[in-house]
Amino acid sequence: MRISELARTAGLSLPTVKYYLRLGLLPAGRAVSATESRYGDQHLRRLRLIRALRDVVGLPIDRVAAVLSAIDEPSDTAYDTLGRAVGALSTSSPGQPGDEGPAAGEFPLARTAIDALGWTYDPEYPAVGQLQAALAAAADVGVPMEPDRLATMGEHVLAMAEFDLSRMPPEPDAAIEYAVLGTALHEPVLLALRRLAHQHLAARS
Amino acid sequence: MRISELARTAGLSLPTVKYYLRLGLLPAGRAVSATESRYGDQHLRRLRLIRALRDVVGLPIDRVAAVLSAIDEPSDTAYDTLGRAVGALSTSSPGQPGDEGPAAGEFPLARTAIDALGWTYDPEYPAVGQLQAALAAAADVGVPMEPDRLATMGEHVLAMAEFDLSRMPPEPDAAIEYAVLGTALHEPVLLALRRLAHQHLAARS
Repeated sequence: MRISELARTAGLSLPTVKYYLRLGLLPAGRAVSATESRYGDQHLRRLRLIRALRDVVGLPIDRVAAVLSAIDEPSDTAYDTLGRAVGALSTSSPGQPGDEGPAAGEFPLARTAIDALGWTYDPEYPAVGQLQAALAAAADVGVPMEPDRLATMGEHVLAMAEFDLSRMPPEPDAAIEYAVLGTALHEPVLLALRRLAHQHLAARS
Repeated sequence: MRISELARTAGLSLPTVKYYLRLGLLPAGRAVSATESRYGDQHLRRLRLIRALRDVVGLPIDRVAAVLSAIDEPSDTAYDTLGRAVGALSTSSPGQPGDEGPAAGEFPLARTAIDALGWTYDPEYPAVGQLQAALAAAADVGVPMEPDRLATMGEHVLAMAEFDLSRMPPEPDAAIEYAVLGTALHEPVLLALRRLAHQHLAARS
């Protein structure tokens, strides 16, 4: 399709699509003349992804670029893939850089929590700093994560994660896209469902 | 304590504390002279809450004011309490106003999902619009919430919510503070734990 049709189908303005092309967020089309190119379904899908990361996840354009680069350069292992996906998204979530509280690399609350759950502790992983910041903030305003609340949350989160991993595509490039999109787009679903579950239980009581 | 000590203990500057007093976010202290007041632990706790809502949750000051007003004017029932807590926080989460997709009040994806889970559907509840926006965004970029993924997430979210409700204080004012803080401050913990669970499972595989 022509670039005008691509923009219209993706629900974006033509200048916006040209801007993404200039930034390299959208790969060039197939040239059919000196001044014209054709675009396909993969371009449409990429534009939808950019729109979701900007409008739904709320990422600034430089973080969108970082996420797309993680997708375009897959890692060898699922572990690295997930780490890079989370790393690329991490500024969009609670736990901004600098929020970690103690000196970089020291995450005492997160370490205690992860040890209590019996999970793998790796301070290089961005989500460890996020957990530290989240636990410190909750404790600071008087709603700490008590051990039994943490154990309950950990048990159910692990069961959900097992489902996610069971559906991860085996191909590395598909796997990292799945990890990025599943992190970015299923987190809002999880939070909305949690709020609805509270409402459902409160309405019944 | 004096206002200077209050500010120092809360980790805020004196002008910031005076600003919150002027806005009415922080209740006035007990006057001990024409020009001096004394502040107590409830002021300190309120300042920590404001700081958490601003820095951790990332709310702008007018949304902080809305949340505090929900806390200060508790509802009669747990249902209303939760609705107001979530409503006051909702702009901080995915699912901004205007993201709902279809006409206001129509949430077809959310309705289908909530019906499938067998939960209470109430389109007035802000989290319904958030769920609609989150489901639409996920479907739009090719990672829809398949029925079995939704069922798995719903089952575990409900179990976590049951724990939260079992710990809700019976007094209405304490209940709404618990709901607001639990929504605002435990959501980041949940997301960080989900990312860590994925990492833990991927590291083992």
